Amino acid sequence: MKRTASLDIAFSPASVAIAGVGPVTAGRNYLESLLDSGFKGKIYPLNPRGGEISGVPIYPNIKDVPEPVDYVISCVPADLVPQLVEDCTENRAKVLSLFTAGFSETGTERGRRLEAEIRRLAQAGGLRLIGPNCMGVYSPKSGLSFVSDFPRESGAVALVCQSGGNTIYFVRLAAQRGVRFSKVISYGNACDVDESDLFEYLTDDDETEIVAAYIEGVKDGGRFYRAVTRLSARKPVIVLKGGYTEAGARTAASHTGSLAGSNAIWDGLLQQAGVLRVHTLEEMLDTVVTFLFLPLPKGRRVAMVGGGGGASVLTSDACNANGFTVPTIPPKTADEITGFLGTSAGMILTNPIEFNMAPEASYNTARSLLSLDAIDLLLGTCVFGQQPWPSFDLWFDFFCDTIIRLHADIDKPIGVIIQSGIPSQEEHFLAIQRRLVEAAIPVYYSMSGACRAIDRFLRYHQKRLAALRSDCK
Amino acid sequence: MKRTASLDIAFSPASVAIAGVGPVTAGRNYLESLLDSGFKGKIYPLNPRGGEISGVPIYPNIKDVPEPVDYVISCVPADLVPQLVEDCTENRAKVLSLFTAGFSETGTERGRRLEAEIRRLAQAGGLRLIGPNCMGVYSPKSGLSFVSDFPRESGAVALVCQSGGNTIYFVRLAAQRGVRFSKVISYGNACDVDESDLFEYLTDDDETEIVAAYIEGVKDGGRFYRAVTRLSARKPVIVLKGGYTEAGARTAASHTGSLAGSNAIWDGLLQQAGVLRVHTLEEMLDTVVTFLFLPLPKGRRVAMVGGGGGASVLTSDACNANGFTVPTIPPKTADEITGFLGTSAGMILTNPIEFNMAPEASYNTARSLLSLDAIDLLLGTCVFGQQPWPSFDLWFDFFCDTIIRLHADIDKPIGVIIQSGIPSQEEHFLAIQRRLVEAAIPVYYSMSGACRAIDRFLRYHQKRLAALRSDCK
Repeated sequence: MKRTASLDIAFSPASVAIAGVGPVTAGRNYLESLLDSGFKGKIYPLNPRGGEISGVPIYPNIKDVPEPVDYVISCVPADLVPQLVEDCTENRAKVLSLFTAGFSETGTERGRRLEAEIRRLAQAGGLRLIGPNCMGVYSPKSGLSFVSDFPRESGAVALVCQSGGNTIYFVRLAAQRGVRFSKVISYGNACDVDESDLFEYLTDDDETEIVAAYIEGVKDGGRFYRAVTRLSARKPVIVLKGGYTEAGARTAASHTGSLAGSNAIWDGLLQQAGVLRVHTLEEMLDTVVTFLFLPLPKGRRVAMVGGGGGASVLTSDACNANGFTVPTIPPKTADEITGFLGTSAGMILTNPIEFNMAPEASYNTARSLLSLDAIDLLLGTCVFGQQPWPSFDLWFDFFCDTIIRLHADIDKPIGVIIQSGIPSQEEHFLAIQRRLVEAAIPVYYSMSGACRAIDRFLRYHQKRLAALRSDCK
Repeated sequence: MKRTASLDIAFSPASVAIAGVGPVTAGRNYLESLLDSGFKGKIYPLNPRGGEISGVPIYPNIKDVPEPVDYVISCVPADLVPQLVEDCTENRAKVLSLFTAGFSETGTERGRRLEAEIRRLAQAGGLRLIGPNCMGVYSPKSGLSFVSDFPRESGAVALVCQSGGNTIYFVRLAAQRGVRFSKVISYGNACDVDESDLFEYLTDDDETEIVAAYIEGVKDGGRFYRAVTRLSARKPVIVLKGGYTEAGARTAASHTGSLAGSNAIWDGLLQQAGVLRVHTLEEMLDTVVTFLFLPLPKGRRVAMVGGGGGASVLTSDACNANGFTVPTIPPKTADEITGFLGTSAGMILTNPIEFNMAPEASYNTARSLLSLDAIDLLLGTCVFGQQPWPSFDLWFDFFCDTIIRLHADIDKPIGVIIQSGIPSQEEHFLAIQRRLVEAAIPVYYSMSGACRAIDRFLRYHQKRLAALRSDCK
């Protein structure tokens, strides 16, 4: 079978079997997650004792399942995996994803040998392995998921992630910011399917427009370089290299048995391949959100709107310190704005501009600002918790109304920074975030995070444009 | 009257008057905040129409109040302030705090003249002014507050803050991390009481052990340098200079009429004065929390405990990249730990170490780690949202139990990084944070934030030690 064909099946299985389903096992959790996520195909829980679970009949062994299974999940102990692999090949199953841990990541000879053995058995039987020591595949269009609360809708972002916990955390965080996924895979020790396979697959995957990856180590550097270079020629690739320090590398070795490699080599390699490198999951998400939702600004000249004098000073500093300018407003526009907002005491009416409690005036003000040639993009700031009294709560709704209206009417990029941290305003914060996200507006949690991501976005396109120009010469 | 005596009165007034109290005014909000905060003295709402509000009789004018008032809050329009100042001096009031805006921060000649006029009138009448364009004083021991939800207990931290919004945001954020305040003042345009007055006052204030300040500009650089140098010789001073970029400085000018000054000059001045400089409110809070709760570590060798392989890789990287080492564990201790935790598949048992679901084993493990000479401090990590299934929820409680027990039993510094971001786990996150904070354990929201703050803490003490040694020579 072609290598990419088996990945097609992993992302769109018609049937799933789960080995090791008991009342309080991980297998049970996998089953519930599948049922909750609306998986469209057949489900075969496996347990030697048989019976029924959550209304689904249990098969004693995959060999008893009356059809070849597309995607098998292993939740049995490591020692039982070699037998499971043999049973799978007898069933002519296509892909085995191993939640089971206890292989090369233990650092023991025994663990390494066990991993080599299952790889050998699987290859001999034409079975592809994902993991071991991973969560496996989340593919919303098939309803295939390993947790119950991931979004059911598909999107344009693929996530390739060597850590199960980071996969889960990232998808949940990203979901709140409006990101939806085409394909997500947590691939653990990568004893068979690895990052290069996945990058090759995603290069031609029409459902994927942006690729984010968390990688602890690669085994074949040459192949990886070729795969990531080809991929990044086609779509933006954002890589978080886990284990880039001595301590991190040592941790990665015991996490997924990875050889982390030197940071300088990774830096050179990723840069050469045109990859966007980030260092935290939060940076990765800011970057994804930017590529997904922000139209490309023509430059770095920002109009800032928001509320709160001290907050405006801090966001101006953060904007300026991260490579963006905040131009002063020409007198004519300043007069226009004063006409809209009045000269209300204590309000800042330069750039940044404070919105008042009148949405129409705020809208007209921002419109004037954005119509200036000297402005490339608008960044709105909305800090929950700085207002003294509940009478200011309505301001957030007005701010949100105004931003959404501007976003619909005006042809310049708009982003919003929202800050929370105050439990009593958490619900309001989430409601405002939801409204902005539903309008496909990029949302960030700090001005510096926003600026760094937009800076990366601009540099990425400048570099591609420069390459294009030199190609044309 | 001595300059510090009037500040004593501002922080411990026996009576408060509020000028401009109507049904839907800021004055009303000030009144409600005072009532909610349990202010212990007399309260005199003022409004020419008289009557009663929230059960408190309204006086037409401060001149009608039968005693000299210690602390008056102005919520009347700017134009009426000169008359209010004259009325206050007739009452022999001590301090007038001006919520009222519309003075020098407007950038107009009219605004500047109005500010100069009220300063002149106040000086002539022996009245001290706070602001204008500020929130004023929060002094928990007196029950004096301008919002209803600030903590009622006192603490060891003073906050001197030129922005009202930043004051409110910081106090609320800090309260969740266990910080309590001796005195807080939002002082706006600083037309009379300024940062130098406040630093002089706090130098001898026994209730204050740590000073945090947000400053947009100072008028008398020489006096400020002397005041901050004397203060920082006595207690740690953490300064966030707002308006350190061109855009920020311009915004500061329209926020509090401040001349922001050059960033390089500020940098040199603050360093020379032994001040800890930060660039965001979040950094300021991380630093305060560290000075308040963390015993001084002997060095930079960290034992890390937590859960989640990918999270452990990322926190190891963040720790190492920010100047801390994560030593490997000697074989004897490693064997001991394996004895406690077992060789559970998929668990990381080096350093960092993953806690399992058995609190006793986790406790013994961390105890072994902390007993090593090669370890200076323990950092625990607890990431909400990375766990696939609710069956893991108990882990957080076990983690928290273990950390609190270690903190009580063991004489090495302990800090905890907790990360949230998943609305469905927000309540659990807050409960764990509350328990850690009640145990006086420093809590951070990112490993890099924690490391940067602890790094600042170590450098601060190294520098002081070096100075002490050179003094003794």
